Amino acid sequence: MEGVDHLADERNKAEFDVDEMKIVWAGSRHAFEVSDRIARLVASDPVNFLNSLLVFVLHLVFEKSDRARLGRKELFKNTLKKCAHAWKRIIELRLTEEEAGRLRFFVDQPAFVDLHWGMFVPAIKGQGTEEQQKKWLSLASKMQIIGCYAQTELGHGSNVQGLETTATFDPKTDEFVVHSPTQTSSKWWPGGLGKVSTHAVVYARLITDGKDYGVHGFIVQLRSLEDHSPLPNIIVGDIGTKMGNGAYNSMDNGFLMFDQVRIPRDQMLMRVAKVTREGKYVPSDVPKQLMYGTMVFVRQTIVADASNALSRAVCIATRYSAVRRQFGARNGGSETQVIDYKTQQNRLFPLLASAYAFRFVGEWLKWLYTDVTERLQASDFATLPEAHACTAGLKSLTTTATADGIEECRKLCGGHGYLWCSGLPELFAVYVPACTYEGDNVVLQLQVARFLMKTVAQLGSGKAPVGTTAYMARAEHLLQCRSGVQKAEDWLNPAAVLEAFEARALRMAVTCVKNLSKFENQEQGFSELLAELVEAAIAHCQLIVVSKFIAKLEQDIGGKGVKKQLNNLCYIYALYILHKHLGDFLSTNSITPKQASLANDQLRSLYSQVRPNAVALVDAFNYTDHYLGSVLGRYDGNVYPKLFEEAWKDPLNDSVVPDGYHEYIRPLIKQQLRTARL
Amino acid sequence: MEGVDHLADERNKAEFDVDEMKIVWAGSRHAFEVSDRIARLVASDPVNFLNSLLVFVLHLVFEKSDRARLGRKELFKNTLKKCAHAWKRIIELRLTEEEAGRLRFFVDQPAFVDLHWGMFVPAIKGQGTEEQQKKWLSLASKMQIIGCYAQTELGHGSNVQGLETTATFDPKTDEFVVHSPTQTSSKWWPGGLGKVSTHAVVYARLITDGKDYGVHGFIVQLRSLEDHSPLPNIIVGDIGTKMGNGAYNSMDNGFLMFDQVRIPRDQMLMRVAKVTREGKYVPSDVPKQLMYGTMVFVRQTIVADASNALSRAVCIATRYSAVRRQFGARNGGSETQVIDYKTQQNRLFPLLASAYAFRFVGEWLKWLYTDVTERLQASDFATLPEAHACTAGLKSLTTTATADGIEECRKLCGGHGYLWCSGLPELFAVYVPACTYEGDNVVLQLQVARFLMKTVAQLGSGKAPVGTTAYMARAEHLLQCRSGVQKAEDWLNPAAVLEAFEARALRMAVTCVKNLSKFENQEQGFSELLAELVEAAIAHCQLIVVSKFIAKLEQDIGGKGVKKQLNNLCYIYALYILHKHLGDFLSTNSITPKQASLANDQLRSLYSQVRPNAVALVDAFNYTDHYLGSVLGRYDGNVYPKLFEEAWKDPLNDSVVPDGYHEYIRPLIKQQLRTARL
Repeated sequence: MEGVDHLADERNKAEFDVDEMKIVWAGSRHAFEVSDRIARLVASDPVNFLNSLLVFVLHLVFEKSDRARLGRKELFKNTLKKCAHAWKRIIELRLTEEEAGRLRFFVDQPAFVDLHWGMFVPAIKGQGTEEQQKKWLSLASKMQIIGCYAQTELGHGSNVQGLETTATFDPKTDEFVVHSPTQTSSKWWPGGLGKVSTHAVVYARLITDGKDYGVHGFIVQLRSLEDHSPLPNIIVGDIGTKMGNGAYNSMDNGFLMFDQVRIPRDQMLMRVAKVTREGKYVPSDVPKQLMYGTMVFVRQTIVADASNALSRAVCIATRYSAVRRQFGARNGGSETQVIDYKTQQNRLFPLLASAYAFRFVGEWLKWLYTDVTERLQASDFATLPEAHACTAGLKSLTTTATADGIEECRKLCGGHGYLWCSGLPELFAVYVPACTYEGDNVVLQLQVARFLMKTVAQLGSGKAPVGTTAYMARAEHLLQCRSGVQKAEDWLNPAAVLEAFEARALRMAVTCVKNLSKFENQEQGFSELLAELVEAAIAHCQLIVVSKFIAKLEQDIGGKGVKKQLNNLCYIYALYILHKHLGDFLSTNSITPKQASLANDQLRSLYSQVRPNAVALVDAFNYTDHYLGSVLGRYDGNVYPKLFEEAWKDPLNDSVVPDGYHEYIRPLIKQQLRTARL
Repeated sequence: MEGVDHLADERNKAEFDVDEMKIVWAGSRHAFEVSDRIARLVASDPVNFLNSLLVFVLHLVFEKSDRARLGRKELFKNTLKKCAHAWKRIIELRLTEEEAGRLRFFVDQPAFVDLHWGMFVPAIKGQGTEEQQKKWLSLASKMQIIGCYAQTELGHGSNVQGLETTATFDPKTDEFVVHSPTQTSSKWWPGGLGKVSTHAVVYARLITDGKDYGVHGFIVQLRSLEDHSPLPNIIVGDIGTKMGNGAYNSMDNGFLMFDQVRIPRDQMLMRVAKVTREGKYVPSDVPKQLMYGTMVFVRQTIVADASNALSRAVCIATRYSAVRRQFGARNGGSETQVIDYKTQQNRLFPLLASAYAFRFVGEWLKWLYTDVTERLQASDFATLPEAHACTAGLKSLTTTATADGIEECRKLCGGHGYLWCSGLPELFAVYVPACTYEGDNVVLQLQVARFLMKTVAQLGSGKAPVGTTAYMARAEHLLQCRSGVQKAEDWLNPAAVLEAFEARALRMAVTCVKNLSKFENQEQGFSELLAELVEAAIAHCQLIVVSKFIAKLEQDIGGKGVKKQLNNLCYIYALYILHKHLGDFLSTNSITPKQASLANDQLRSLYSQVRPNAVALVDAFNYTDHYLGSVLGRYDGNVYPKLFEEAWKDPLNDSVVPDGYHEYIRPLIKQQLRTARL
């Protein structure tokens, strides 16, 4: 039944203009068009080559459905091939930077290039002097060198200040001596380091004239540009298999040890501080805060990634929930589509709403980054702590929810979600490191909590809270207000929802401040109350997501029915969070049990409104079947025949009687094990 | 530093007798001794064999640390070998059934034998006549035939009554004709089916004389006992790669289609109903309820498995949390052990407590199964619905919490938890199907909810609620009581805790009944309120777990400090659940916000009491390093050097310059891609 759209009925039900929604999702018509064009290019990029019979055959280089069947070495080689081919196409087609980025995105295979472009190049841009940038970026931008970002060590992750690697200045030779003094000081995890990178930005403690100036970045060449062998006194390799089939095993995360490796002084990244020929440490006049700008940038992209990953999982689960039927057959008719069950809606639709919510808060973060950059250039650092806390919290919130949401989507697909070809196990395995890298999610919420405690403490001091904490200025009102919700529909009132979220967040923060004040030693109190501080931080971050979704709805959004759908999703998100964290709302008296029950009623009604639009709402993500990589999530819904096709490809089906039968199965059933040589 | 115990300090801190705790955990001294002996056997079973140089070498057949590096075919062959060797040892050592079961458990590699012993044999025992049992069990018990359990179909999982496979009686030949009428009727998922099983118990709709009598079991031979080829008109194969590295990919989950396959009439399992020579369908006088007994049995083993899997993850995370240090170094001293952070304790210790809680509720379920069996034999079916609901709910509750808990433990290990050699990714992948098989977890809670609705409706009718619902008889009191907790320590009072849990569970159930009554059509109401019904069911099941833990504490438990530790864990479990579901407790007015805050205070205090005992509490599980299979969870805590050892074994480290360098890396950095043949 190729060519038949098994989900056509679902698509016909939609009450809004899907094409317009695609543009809202993409952020702009331009962004949509670039994504759409590049996604199709990657999905169908053919290469002609002569096969062994000297016949030209068509081959899709970016094919990825065989990924789980490749051993580690094959998978890695396949990745190298895709990266090389991608770069070749980028050059041939003269793609812009934006287009090249989308191309790597749609190739969808973790690889050393991610770190080269995503960490190595930005590190030099951010921390290198103009001269350094000129030299190194011209090499890196053509990939004449390939770089990675070597910060994390075997024994040191979150605590960057605890890194052990040293870079000691030797004034005799005008060099730094980079050294790994212990086994735990070995660099461990950097992507692209294990087998590919020719260079790295290495973070090490700068020591000069006997004094430790803390962690700084250095450009270190790791491998010969001629034969790729590691340079002398460098031990480097791959750290081994990681979670999941395929997944991050295409990446050569590596380890790296230095035995007194010498590099020229000018390979220290010197924008913020330099070491002179004489070995004097001299901070530059570039404000240190500039570094925070980079952090805001990186975390903003992580939030955008969260909405990508979650929407992908939701797309698979939604389509398959419309295909799959269980129970409820009457008079020999079809069974009920599982998407019609309230339990399924109750788990799936909040994730659909979250995908949209994270999309819009990500969009807003992009604006925040621009704002922060402009202010930094004007040496205005006033909003920086708030922007920093806010991005830290949103990174934590969205990545945790996304990882959990992908796994929930997998469960929502029933048993078949457990098959690799459902796409969900690999999506989870590839995504979940986001909860740990660029700041462990719990550690980040503690940073938010510290900022909130400070903000609350300063209320009334005349220093007005800014940005996402501006609501705290209304503390007097928020500490005593009572929610006016009286019927279910009142929960569709943005002011009512915002007030409930603001009251809850502020009251939790204020309670933490009070509880902290009971301790003589503030730090001890902080450490004792860590768990409730994290909860207060989360409450604040959820308020941000809800408020940015509501703000989005206030924008001019065209297209038949589009705004209506977004409105439904916004309140699903808010009321789902309200229900999930009901304990917070009730214990702070932000709402009453009766109002909570009305919120549930409203939520159920919203589910019914979303139901006929669900498939169209995931179509709006505009994912190709290639990118989605899921038999269950196929656009045409033709799931079951395709599951069979995939099954037949398994190596175990190469032969009818499996390898090992004669040695291990036959002796067993013939009762001849005693004499068998196992 | 081989031989040094890096966790000795932790072990010295313990305030209780670990050896006695091991016996409590195992359930009895006998159970402990069997487990301990067999675990060591598996961990160290050597085989001498002649290598290619004709030298005798020692080889550990049950070695499993190479599992992630094996391709699908190699992994499968390795599994066949382990199964054959295990059976050989079982025969050589004349192991008892109990010992053989433990041996398979400690081999710890999903395999066809699990289904042969766990499903095929029990199905024949439960559903076969005495004659059938005699014939088939004598073959199966020697493994002269290997069987699997073929129920689930490609398009039909939870809804067994919707299965499509047919077995039509042909009176002309006295045979059943087994047939797969559609693609979705293909059997799909049965373990051991894909490549190994010679026989299967196949579930199919029994049709005789033109009438469909619903789903029944049939023994069908699938493969030749001589050359293992599938019998005529049978299409069978493996369904392909599943989630995770290693993990369930050692199992040949299979698909199976019949094209009019004939089997003798006496291969229908005829204990409950039979078809006569003439084709008449005759139910036997064996009560159908007997089947529920089997279900209670299977689900009880699943709950026991939950405590195994969760305790394993907790053991790894606890030991590594004691090894790992981050932040907080003062004056150049060591950093703080991460287990000392309250955020870590707040996530880890409830899981430690849950592992113990599930252990004891599993123990109690074992008793329940005996009780049910005895009653069934006396034709007393009164307690059966309650026992059935209770096992369904506990299966759902414990498997969900365990799957989530394993993943949480992985995150608690920071970045290194993402390495395959941490043991946690594979443990998760192997465990998580338990949430889906033997009843989807949400579907099961709905069964519990239905039972609760019925029980509440019958209150006051004179029919007293039994077993785990007995508390509902005190509805009048529980609907209006107010918790008397006034200070944190009051939360250590079993009566106070039980009453809060009982009030919450009952009030939620009663609210559901009330809300249901607002609908004219009960079924429509049920479907509309599915989400809150599930929550009420979960509340009831959590009460069961808490009450069985408290009941355990009332038993005679010896050993220095053992009871004290269990007491701490019991209240950690209860108060953690209370905090996690605070919305339930507050919205039902079962406790006040102030009391909730006191519960948190008490929880923190309990964490401090558990802290010095944490490593000893996981030592009490008595897992060998072989079984644990985790570099991070090693008994001796010697983590970092061993991580390096594992890394070096990765195939990517076979060569310094990776395969693919000349084709894909060199042309890239030498700017020669344009002419390269990719």
